[in-house]
Amino acid sequence: MARVAILGATGYTALELLKILARHPQAQVVAATTRQENRPHIAEIHPSLTGMFDLRCEALNPEQAGKQCDIAFCCLPHTASMEAVPQLLDAGCRVIDLSADYRLSDPGVYETWYEHVHTDPTRLTTAVYGLPEIYGDKIPGAELVANPGCYTSTSILALAPLLAKRMIEPTGIIIDAKSGISGAGRTLKLSNLFSECNESVTAYSIGKHRHTPEIEQVLSDIGGAKIQVSFNPHLMPMDRGIFCSIYPRLKSTTTQSELLDVYRRFYAGQPFIRVVEHIPATKDVSHTNFCDITIRFNRDQLVIFAAIDNLIKGASGVAVQNMNLMLGLDQRLGMLGVV
Amino acid sequence: MARVAILGATGYTALELLKILARHPQAQVVAATTRQENRPHIAEIHPSLTGMFDLRCEALNPEQAGKQCDIAFCCLPHTASMEAVPQLLDAGCRVIDLSADYRLSDPGVYETWYEHVHTDPTRLTTAVYGLPEIYGDKIPGAELVANPGCYTSTSILALAPLLAKRMIEPTGIIIDAKSGISGAGRTLKLSNLFSECNESVTAYSIGKHRHTPEIEQVLSDIGGAKIQVSFNPHLMPMDRGIFCSIYPRLKSTTTQSELLDVYRRFYAGQPFIRVVEHIPATKDVSHTNFCDITIRFNRDQLVIFAAIDNLIKGASGVAVQNMNLMLGLDQRLGMLGVV
Amino acid sequence: MARVAILGATGYTALELLKILARHPQAQVVAATTRQENRPHIAEIHPSLTGMFDLRCEALNPEQAGKQCDIAFCCLPHTASMEAVPQLLDAGCRVIDLSADYRLSDPGVYETWYEHVHTDPTRLTTAVYGLPEIYGDKIPGAELVANPGCYTSTSILALAPLLAKRMIEPTGIIIDAKSGISGAGRTLKLSNLFSECNESVTAYSIGKHRHTPEIEQVLSDIGGAKIQVSFNPHLMPMDRGIFCSIYPRLKSTTTQSELLDVYRRFYAGQPFIRVVEHIPATKDVSHTNFCDITIRFNRDQLVIFAAIDNLIKGASGVAVQNMNLMLGLDQRLGMLGVV
Amino acid sequence: MARVAILGATGYTALELLKILARHPQAQVVAATTRQENRPHIAEIHPSLTGMFDLRCEALNPEQAGKQCDIAFCCLPHTASMEAVPQLLDAGCRVIDLSADYRLSDPGVYETWYEHVHTDPTRLTTAVYGLPEIYGDKIPGAELVANPGCYTSTSILALAPLLAKRMIEPTGIIIDAKSGISGAGRTLKLSNLFSECNESVTAYSIGKHRHTPEIEQVLSDIGGAKIQVSFNPHLMPMDRGIFCSIYPRLKSTTTQSELLDVYRRFYAGQPFIRVVEHIPATKDVSHTNFCDITIRFNRDQLVIFAAIDNLIKGASGVAVQNMNLMLGLDQRLGMLGVV
Repeated sequence: MARVAILGATGYTALELLKILARHPQAQVVAATTRQENRPHIAEIHPSLTGMFDLRCEALNPEQAGKQCDIAFCCLPHTASMEAVPQLLDAGCRVIDLSADYRLSDPGVYETWYEHVHTDPTRLTTAVYGLPEIYGDKIPGAELVANPGCYTSTSILALAPLLAKRMIEPTGIIIDAKSGISGAGRTLKLSNLFSECNESVTAYSIGKHRHTPEIEQVLSDIGGAKIQVSFNPHLMPMDRGIFCSIYPRLKSTTTQSELLDVYRRFYAGQPFIRVVEHIPATKDVSHTNFCDITIRFNRDQLVIFAAIDNLIKGASGVAVQNMNLMLGLDQRLGMLGVV
Repeated sequence: MARVAILGATGYTALELLKILARHPQAQVVAATTRQENRPHIAEIHPSLTGMFDLRCEALNPEQAGKQCDIAFCCLPHTASMEAVPQLLDAGCRVIDLSADYRLSDPGVYETWYEHVHTDPTRLTTAVYGLPEIYGDKIPGAELVANPGCYTSTSILALAPLLAKRMIEPTGIIIDAKSGISGAGRTLKLSNLFSECNESVTAYSIGKHRHTPEIEQVLSDIGGAKIQVSFNPHLMPMDRGIFCSIYPRLKSTTTQSELLDVYRRFYAGQPFIRVVEHIPATKDVSHTNFCDITIRFNRDQLVIFAAIDNLIKGASGVAVQNMNLMLGLDQRLGMLGVV
Repeated sequence: MARVAILGATGYTALELLKILARHPQAQVVAATTRQENRPHIAEIHPSLTGMFDLRCEALNPEQAGKQCDIAFCCLPHTASMEAVPQLLDAGCRVIDLSADYRLSDPGVYETWYEHVHTDPTRLTTAVYGLPEIYGDKIPGAELVANPGCYTSTSILALAPLLAKRMIEPTGIIIDAKSGISGAGRTLKLSNLFSECNESVTAYSIGKHRHTPEIEQVLSDIGGAKIQVSFNPHLMPMDRGIFCSIYPRLKSTTTQSELLDVYRRFYAGQPFIRVVEHIPATKDVSHTNFCDITIRFNRDQLVIFAAIDNLIKGASGVAVQNMNLMLGLDQRLGMLGVV
Repeated sequence: MARVAILGATGYTALELLKILARHPQAQVVAATTRQENRPHIAEIHPSLTGMFDLRCEALNPEQAGKQCDIAFCCLPHTASMEAVPQLLDAGCRVIDLSADYRLSDPGVYETWYEHVHTDPTRLTTAVYGLPEIYGDKIPGAELVANPGCYTSTSILALAPLLAKRMIEPTGIIIDAKSGISGAGRTLKLSNLFSECNESVTAYSIGKHRHTPEIEQVLSDIGGAKIQVSFNPHLMPMDRGIFCSIYPRLKSTTTQSELLDVYRRFYAGQPFIRVVEHIPATKDVSHTNFCDITIRFNRDQLVIFAAIDNLIKGASGVAVQNMNLMLGLDQRLGMLGVV
């Protein structure tokens, strides 16, 4: 039974982690941290967890938390994470960091996109990018896993097979991504208000969204060339779900069934990737760790469609999948819909 | 490992049943029926189940289905169920009927509310009403369990402790019930269209809703007197969830904490009832088999609030809870959020 | 052409006011105020108003604003309003106050419910309560109109005919009110976040909601007796709309058609009250100044159903209706759906 | 005062037409047709219209309807429209057809995409395509106006300025379009159910959507070359609104401000096109006849964003705009938000 700590227990990713860990047969949550000093019970912060955990949120520092656990999930905001992670590792636990702080291997790229100097740059090269379908061989031995962004995972999983086989051009890849509102976190800002989001669709952060360099870094690694994407995120009036419509340029003529075969072979044996023939809906994968992918030709244009639950496969589900791999367990433990 | 059949596999309750059974360690779905003759794969009907079952929906008659299984979940519409259930029982399986056909013990009451003669009236007295928190002693030995309605379960669970202790008047109980749209099923009717329901709240079937006699029958059994309720259902623009606000008349003066103690004692040991101090939200119980209950005084008026997920605790979750009891298993098997 | 100023232009009620005034043939918005010092264009604050107004929001004090206009709409928060209104009146304009500050005639009641000393108590007796269907005779001559709360208007309009005729008991009136999220304003608080509200229903402020004394004050005035209500507000996952289900106790036996006639007679000639035979939905009145009302008997229990758009008939629509009356205009000017 | 008839009064476009016409100072609805024989009052079909019209829906044939009116809005389904329109014109009225039947000038293209022989092919060349910002000179004199599709209008308005100036390549234009559910009409089909659409995003009809040839026909006319688009429609869980994200290829280097100037010049004097600098949201244009447009560069990729209300600027609003032009009236009559 692995002992687990969660740093930053008040947000949505922490909540989803706790729901998954509640049904996990090989993990026990031994600590949850908060900046609040009054030791709130976890069910005071997340009423949906009432009766599920006998757990108070403590104002522990990372060292204290790290000493109590085998694995720490770090759900702190970016820049706070790079302060906590070194202390957690020093305390002797392994870390799955859900922030962006250890996802980019180049500290200069981090500083450009996050407008903040990276204070722990040496660990950027040893941290393992936690996308199990791509880096499944490195995760089991990792001390520090950088859990991927939600848009990032969807985009990479949708493009990886074709880039690995060099079937599409490395540039001019258009990603039109649609996300539910929970992707913006449990943050008090105007654009997160119900009355602003509901009954509305819009785009945002065009050319400036921080998942862009993350997508390009991993795809470049897979594609063996510098990949450049035009990543265009949109907000949809729903809680959860990401739907990516991706428009790449094929290098040579092929067919839908040939391409689906490329996907099926690439993801053979992967329990969470479903290469389907119908166009998936985010509802199909809601509350699961699945990523559903298909392709279509629209006139001559190849279109890739991929759907995930942003809080599960896009955050907390893949985090537990990473934990399972790190602990040598079946990666499906704790997940719904996978038997 | 219990062999399970699902009759009428295309609706939302069947879908939720399948999702629960997919993670159930002691049950295996061996058959799913449909009226369609072309043997569709279950994933063609419910794309979210892709990869989870190796199962085609067959146009089996009840006798054929009944012979293949130990337990049959009957998800047919009312009046169709009373045709199928006798055949299922004759074929040797036990039955959990999710329709209304075996919930009312008096065939005359059935005919009044459902405007249809009951063709299997003798079984109405032997069927066990499948609300485990009330009839948990009878369900283990039952051959036929009548799974309760969604509004019904919420209303009964909210009122049972006070009626069992004779603390409220048996008449004049006002139930103001709010339900998500999935409660109306996967039926093609105008009032189920997105553009009719979304951004709208209304009431319906006032004085005519068929869950009324069901609520009254069970509450009368608990309260030892003829209970009469004014049941007022409303539709909310959301997928799932029932929230009941109930206004009974107290017989004598008491306090909030005394009443909460009554609830806690009544439901002691029940894994799915959470007596809470905050006002619950349907989101707290979404996708779980929990029923969250609290009370408030508003001026002198007692108000009981109860929330469930209509598809889980209101239908498929309690159905599996019943199956667990019938099979002598821990009633929590397959459920989320209960450890 | 009346000159209009709006104090506190950033919220939802101000936005709706501006949309109505944009199509009003006899009013011109000459000033809009904000605490921001940078003179933002109104379309920067409300992008939906792009191209509709040549108007910057100024950091005017009430005296400055009041001197520029004939009518001031005060959309400030409560307690801020009672500071501004005296200055506005002194500056020579007439005022429609959308806050709660002048709604309660007894300063002690105000202090009990709002936990704040009233600094302008003498005006509480001269302010006119701005519900035109009840106080239509007093509004034309008023210098200061206290625009009613959204729940309040719905509840009062639903109950007034029966209380005016002394047909229901003055106590034990249960109001189960359901509101869209915009009723909570454009405020940064956790309970207003999309991911908290969406796919969820709950109750709140039971026994503590500040519209309670307002409802009771006006109903007592209408009913000629001290009216006491149990007011129970709920939140629905939608932008706009209030639906009240009201459970009073009839003094003597009557019929649905007799009661509907009472309503029709009471509201004869009122352009915005629609006494209907079907159960209304909030969608029927969305974006209009209508209040749709009907009644049902559920067993012996009388149920009144009333629906409004909380931002229009519940706030900005009735505010313009009041302005029309104050200016001696047809009260329908600027309104949708009324011809 | 123009006399107006509406054929096919039960759908959402007819409802929106009626709401606009109710506030139109120069039009009177004299007839509304339905296939129902029982002469339902319009408020029985659309409860939101209660008290707004003294109008029953009659089972009139087109000839009868045509003789009563100056202008007929034909809201019939495609293929039914081509039966009715010739009779309407023969009866002496002018026609605005909201179906697709007269939008495509080539009957062969119609037959390919609609899988139905066109029975009135000669009128395809005389019908005027009713997009006023493009064909505003032809609409005033038209006898038959083919009202555009909702996706079509958005896409054309977003691309027209750049194609008119030959600034983008005629092929490889990717349109990623997101629509609310009302775009699918008031039709009883599974994919229109609330519980299917809510909390879900998906794509549909990829390569097969019938607005494709319509977009290409008009853009080719504007661009003076054969334009080819990859049109990719998606469904969003909301009532109304279309948001198009369009990815064209620029012929030569330019800047955002130069391009915005091209848009501003192209749409100078157009009351319903708002070229904005922020990224619009569908909520900004909800219930209005506005189309909000802006552009961004994402790396080197030009992206055009355009938002409309699919029921107003995408259907009934532009229909009344066309009527205004046909009657020699100010095209803004009856519209919201335009002063």
